[in-house]
Amino acid sequence: MSRVRVQHFTVSLDGFATGEGLSFEQPFGHAGERLHQWMMATRWWHELTGQPGGAGGIDDTFVRQFAHGIGAEIMGARKFGPPGWQDDPDWKGWWGPNPPFHTPVFVLTHRPRAPLEMEGGTTFHFIDAPPAGALEAARAVAGGQDIRLGGGPTMLREFLAAGLVDDMHVVLVPILLGRGVRLWDGLEGLEKDYAIEMVSSPGGVTHLTFSRAGASR
Amino acid sequence: MSRVRVQHFTVSLDGFATGEGLSFEQPFGHAGERLHQWMMATRWWHELTGQPGGAGGIDDTFVRQFAHGIGAEIMGARKFGPPGWQDDPDWKGWWGPNPPFHTPVFVLTHRPRAPLEMEGGTTFHFIDAPPAGALEAARAVAGGQDIRLGGGPTMLREFLAAGLVDDMHVVLVPILLGRGVRLWDGLEGLEKDYAIEMVSSPGGVTHLTFSRAGASR
Repeated sequence: MSRVRVQHFTVSLDGFATGEGLSFEQPFGHAGERLHQWMMATRWWHELTGQPGGAGGIDDTFVRQFAHGIGAEIMGARKFGPPGWQDDPDWKGWWGPNPPFHTPVFVLTHRPRAPLEMEGGTTFHFIDAPPAGALEAARAVAGGQDIRLGGGPTMLREFLAAGLVDDMHVVLVPILLGRGVRLWDGLEGLEKDYAIEMVSSPGGVTHLTFSRAGASR
Repeated sequence: MSRVRVQHFTVSLDGFATGEGLSFEQPFGHAGERLHQWMMATRWWHELTGQPGGAGGIDDTFVRQFAHGIGAEIMGARKFGPPGWQDDPDWKGWWGPNPPFHTPVFVLTHRPRAPLEMEGGTTFHFIDAPPAGALEAARAVAGGQDIRLGGGPTMLREFLAAGLVDDMHVVLVPILLGRGVRLWDGLEGLEKDYAIEMVSSPGGVTHLTFSRAGASR
């Protein structure tokens, strides 16, 4: 059964998944890299970025789920590029010629463009669709494997509100960003649909897993 | 050195410390008892309320810090009673004739009244003062011991914003209340002043401790 999964989606203690003032120089705005330092410390990240070293352990174990069993990703427009990328026909995403997805990736945007085939198996498809429609498109090409919801917070909230998320891994970082885009707004009672576990890691973050019995279809 | 402490202050995953619709019947509004079930499961709570049983372990260890070394409490008006208690000259708090504080307690209110001496060493003092002034009043009677900030979220936020909190224990419960009063609003960068630890408990909550080097005076 194909499941819809969210993986190592990171929020501050006050619930912000991204800061204010997103730009090419600051993809997460005033948050900078503070939300993701825990991830950059893992051995998985070091391997992905061609650096030696990095830490094993629970944080590394969680991030290594990233690609397992995933057949396609869906991401919001604000993840694909800085504000205004839609006006730049040459923008191909943040990730260079060989993005780390290696599957079809559906970018939700009100201004669709032609698909973009990258090295390594990643193809970006640009679609203007509500959550259910995007999921249908992703499943059609995922070969029965799971769908990753890649964020940002706005699209995730929409999928959660629509009841379309089966498994969600959220990482809580003990910083207070104060401003930006919140993940948790408008989701009263979300816990009723999930078994939830919390586990703190020696790396200084807390991992939350939301697991729903049975997949969303 | 006398420290200013916050103890087992509980918030939902979306940061709410109390729900909407506070009343005599529902002191935490639509949140009901869901924020505090973890605490009611401890042996400490069972002892306090005259019930047998209850669980030991990390949750119990944390709540047992409640009275240790505390010389006075400061609480917000909305903790002392349901909306409108100021109009009821006979209202003496939620806690019966022998409240669990056993120290002077300063209730912050714009409508002060005469002090209320209860059994067991608790005296309620009603004062109209900003955070620093309330702290001064509490310290004057605390015999050199620590001051507990009893909440709710509004008064806590004010003390945090004023830089007057030395130690804070916050308990995170994995539910989404969606509405109510938030603890974390307007506290960007709070983490800079504290060493922060997070530890999840088998009881299903996560304990956060904020510790400042050196007391606030």
